Amino acid sequence: MTTPGPGTPASGDWLAALRFDDQGLIPAIAQDAQSGTVLMVAWMNAEAVQETVRTGRAVYFSRSRGRLWRKGEESGHVQQVHDIRLDCDGDVLLLKITQIGGIACHTGRERCFFRGLDLNGDQPAWVEQDPVLKDPAAIYGHSHGH
Amino acid sequence: MTTPGPGTPASGDWLAALRFDDQGLIPAIAQDAQSGTVLMVAWMNAEAVQETVRTGRAVYFSRSRGRLWRKGEESGHVQQVHDIRLDCDGDVLLLKITQIGGIACHTGRERCFFRGLDLNGDQPAWVEQDPVLKDPAAIYGHSHGH
Repeated sequence: MTTPGPGTPASGDWLAALRFDDQGLIPAIAQDAQSGTVLMVAWMNAEAVQETVRTGRAVYFSRSRGRLWRKGEESGHVQQVHDIRLDCDGDVLLLKITQIGGIACHTGRERCFFRGLDLNGDQPAWVEQDPVLKDPAAIYGHSHGH
Repeated sequence: MTTPGPGTPASGDWLAALRFDDQGLIPAIAQDAQSGTVLMVAWMNAEAVQETVRTGRAVYFSRSRGRLWRKGEESGHVQQVHDIRLDCDGDVLLLKITQIGGIACHTGRERCFFRGLDLNGDQPAWVEQDPVLKDPAAIYGHSHGH
């Protein structure tokens, strides 16, 4: 990395290493910093990445709502970000986080990856393998995604 | 899951739960089954998913080459798949794998997420934090991606 001189845009170098897709988004994996459990994947635009770095809390871009999504803004289940990594071709971020409240998924489960593929039957089948820890209605007070 | 009756297409139910993007692709995270280390993210089309399930080895779809990419086909660094999970909205897969050869990244590193964001300087900076374990030229015998 070169050292930015006076007048160099604050966010230049490091942000330029990210390869956003044609929607201006990059996927970010949230992994529990303690257990290593992969909790969820969401998307970030440049603004979300910058705010995440600045605040130390995960900020995503909600594709369904078309705006920044400060994780936990309604549920209180914020994600404290300890480490951010970038993959070799610069198009995926990996965040090591602490999930406040212990629930990353809007379904009230610890993680979004709660369905496992069961190969023991005649056909493969998705089986829900993680318990609902909290009623989503109690998390949000109303029905919505994440 | 309903039980498929006679004549039901073999791959019907479980594959229909996957939400492929407008390119017909779904991202798949490969996570080391022992250590929990997130090694890489690549893409699968329906055929890649089916072959992965059938063979127990990770098969991706190479966007750059426009064809199925049987991980390890050139390097020998195949991925044995122990578990497949799907997230709540059905658009990301999570694979628990054993990485034969211990190298998932085409750069010769254990994992593709070898750059970490260093926040100690005046500006954030990506720093390479993982060693190259094997010369990529020795892995492939020639230069190419993954």
